[in-house]
Amino acid sequence: IRSKLPHLGMTIFSVMSQKALEHGAINLSQGFPDFPVPERLRALLAEAVHAGHNQYAPLAGEPMLREAIAAKVCALYGCALDAQAAITVTSGATEALFAAICAVVRAGDEVIVFDPAYDAYEPAVTLAGGHVRHLPLCPPNFRVDWDRVRDALTAHTRLIILNSPHNPTGAVFKPTDLEALAQITQSTDVLLLADEVYEHIVFDRCQHQSLLRHAELAARSFVVSSFGKTYHCTGWKVGYCIAPPRLTAELRKVHQYLTFSTMTPAQHAFAHFMTEEPEHYRQLPAFYQAKRDHFCAMLRRSRFRFTPTRGTYFQLLDYSELSTCNDVEYADQLLANAGVASIPISVFYQHPPPQQRLLRFCFAKTAPTLEQASARLCAL
Amino acid sequence: IRSKLPHLGMTIFSVMSQKALEHGAINLSQGFPDFPVPERLRALLAEAVHAGHNQYAPLAGEPMLREAIAAKVCALYGCALDAQAAITVTSGATEALFAAICAVVRAGDEVIVFDPAYDAYEPAVTLAGGHVRHLPLCPPNFRVDWDRVRDALTAHTRLIILNSPHNPTGAVFKPTDLEALAQITQSTDVLLLADEVYEHIVFDRCQHQSLLRHAELAARSFVVSSFGKTYHCTGWKVGYCIAPPRLTAELRKVHQYLTFSTMTPAQHAFAHFMTEEPEHYRQLPAFYQAKRDHFCAMLRRSRFRFTPTRGTYFQLLDYSELSTCNDVEYADQLLANAGVASIPISVFYQHPPPQQRLLRFCFAKTAPTLEQASARLCAL
Ligand SMILES: CSCCC(=O)C(=O)O
Ligand SMILES: CSCCC(=O)C(=O)O
Repeated sequence: IRSKLPHLGMTIFSVMSQKALEHGAINLSQGFPDFPVPERLRALLAEAVHAGHNQYAPLAGEPMLREAIAAKVCALYGCALDAQAAITVTSGATEALFAAICAVVRAGDEVIVFDPAYDAYEPAVTLAGGHVRHLPLCPPNFRVDWDRVRDALTAHTRLIILNSPHNPTGAVFKPTDLEALAQITQSTDVLLLADEVYEHIVFDRCQHQSLLRHAELAARSFVVSSFGKTYHCTGWKVGYCIAPPRLTAELRKVHQYLTFSTMTPAQHAFAHFMTEEPEHYRQLPAFYQAKRDHFCAMLRRSRFRFTPTRGTYFQLLDYSELSTCNDVEYADQLLANAGVASIPISVFYQHPPPQQRLLRFCFAKTAPTLEQASARLCAL
Repeated sequence: IRSKLPHLGMTIFSVMSQKALEHGAINLSQGFPDFPVPERLRALLAEAVHAGHNQYAPLAGEPMLREAIAAKVCALYGCALDAQAAITVTSGATEALFAAICAVVRAGDEVIVFDPAYDAYEPAVTLAGGHVRHLPLCPPNFRVDWDRVRDALTAHTRLIILNSPHNPTGAVFKPTDLEALAQITQSTDVLLLADEVYEHIVFDRCQHQSLLRHAELAARSFVVSSFGKTYHCTGWKVGYCIAPPRLTAELRKVHQYLTFSTMTPAQHAFAHFMTEEPEHYRQLPAFYQAKRDHFCAMLRRSRFRFTPTRGTYFQLLDYSELSTCNDVEYADQLLANAGVASIPISVFYQHPPPQQRLLRFCFAKTAPTLEQASARLCAL
């Protein structure tokens, strides 16, 4: 059998988590919390199961959950949505990304992706027969060069994939980014796919620049988010996609044959939790900023260099003073010698910048985990 | 935006379930039980959530669950599997079907599908750029005409999609079907995708003819099954795919970017339940046969004609004595006038046989539901 994805192996997140397990290392590679799901949310899931919400949910998601999402989006981004026509609940944000790409990208289409990029985008484009045009984010702050985007647009450009807060770099869009994007795309029929799964994890009083804030952008966008990241339950695999009705219709045509629907009792649990605890996501920036600050404060005594991340639960560390190895090699060394698993960011590039020596660390961890990991990193 | 699936609307299951809700009808259309998930299984899910199994599962599935599946398959079909290399847990059987098709079908490939066919197969093939070759199942018993399959094979045939027990007709493969299939495919490199989600729902002492029973077939097959159908929890959305390692490797390349992984606590719950209650699926044929027999006995007094179904929880009823309408119209009439929702089977055909007047009814229901529905159907 000839592979349709011949150059692809197992995703780096699984590779590193598996190695971490084998080495008994502290796993700061794959992004997930090591602290519990809120007790009330766990109780709500158990209640939904016992109440008998165990058969297929509607394919677009439980109406109650979609209403709760619409209310949140309206409160935060000032964007009034028709929950019925514009919101689709998916089996994780990953499914939403795949379905959106699969729904609109055709053979020969071009899709703009900014490197470093989350590793799920390109395979979905490839499987849809599309072609990824890689544009670099600009050092040192990993910002988009909008002039380059304008120059890269062709008659074949179907989609631009955006990601803010940005994984793996922590970069966060500013209002001027949305304006530039609107300006560039206004007289085109280019569509946008915004991966906003870390929407509630932004620091230093930054405001998350959701594409939903901008009516012209929202009119051509799939905006994807995640319950796992916000509610500390990455393993429940619930996400959603917001898009105007004409795009949602196409997304759902794919979604209904990709997974059909998403775990019913989890949808009930999230709907109730969002209503009962509307403050949860408002407290998330402070919650994660404290973790970032704790982790970064400890690392000041290390030989790693860094700028505190602006969003997501990932911190990049530059190991230039410690080694001249490439980041894949150094991540393996760190794992074997220091017992800390991380993600080498070169794997998210088509052409990794040769002089760049950066590893990504997940700080969605309890204080003891962060302290133990920092101690090991400081000892190097 | 130009649709990639222009002729496709909302799946018939959602359409009919929605209409049933609007009319306050008894919903025997979409296939799902109206009785509870086993209490112990619900408790195990709650326990897994409280025990903290809430972050990403391994992308191929929890090892414990894959071992339990391997043990079951070995016990039932005499097929020794490497759970690590051959089993992938998916977000419902639907995801497994989509991922398998997406992994192996390329632009220009032909895929053989037998009509009537479950509606998820063709869109997946279309999105992969493939072309469906429709072959009819033969009346009156909806059997495969293997000579026609042989004649339909071309140099472009990549995949044959099989489904036994068959939805919507209830037809079940005999050992001679597997032999014919093996004979036809032996000197080809055609792959097989077997939708066996109703593997544990076969009647009248029939034996489910899993492709896993036949080593030569298994070596070229993706075999898909479902926990929802077996454990009365269609809304939990957990399924799996068994395939030889070289095919599993390709399936997982797609799966890891389609959903990445499947709800962790549900996987723990199923793993424990399969170990604690290994008899559950062995009791399923008798459990559902009693329902079929109850439903059919009541319908003897109706003007519907039928042969009791051989497998699945669906019964076809012929309404020729009641109406000359086509089945789509008659399903709508039945919904509006009798308050019973069903599925018109013509929607599963490329070219529905013009004289065929069949509706599909789901009998995965409690006795009172079946009695009430039958009373309404007998009154016609
Ligand atoms: C789907 S596993 C990867 C989790 C994640 O988003 C990350 O670590 O970047
Ligand atoms: C995915 S909803 C359809 C359920 C089902 O398998 C059926 O009714 O045939």
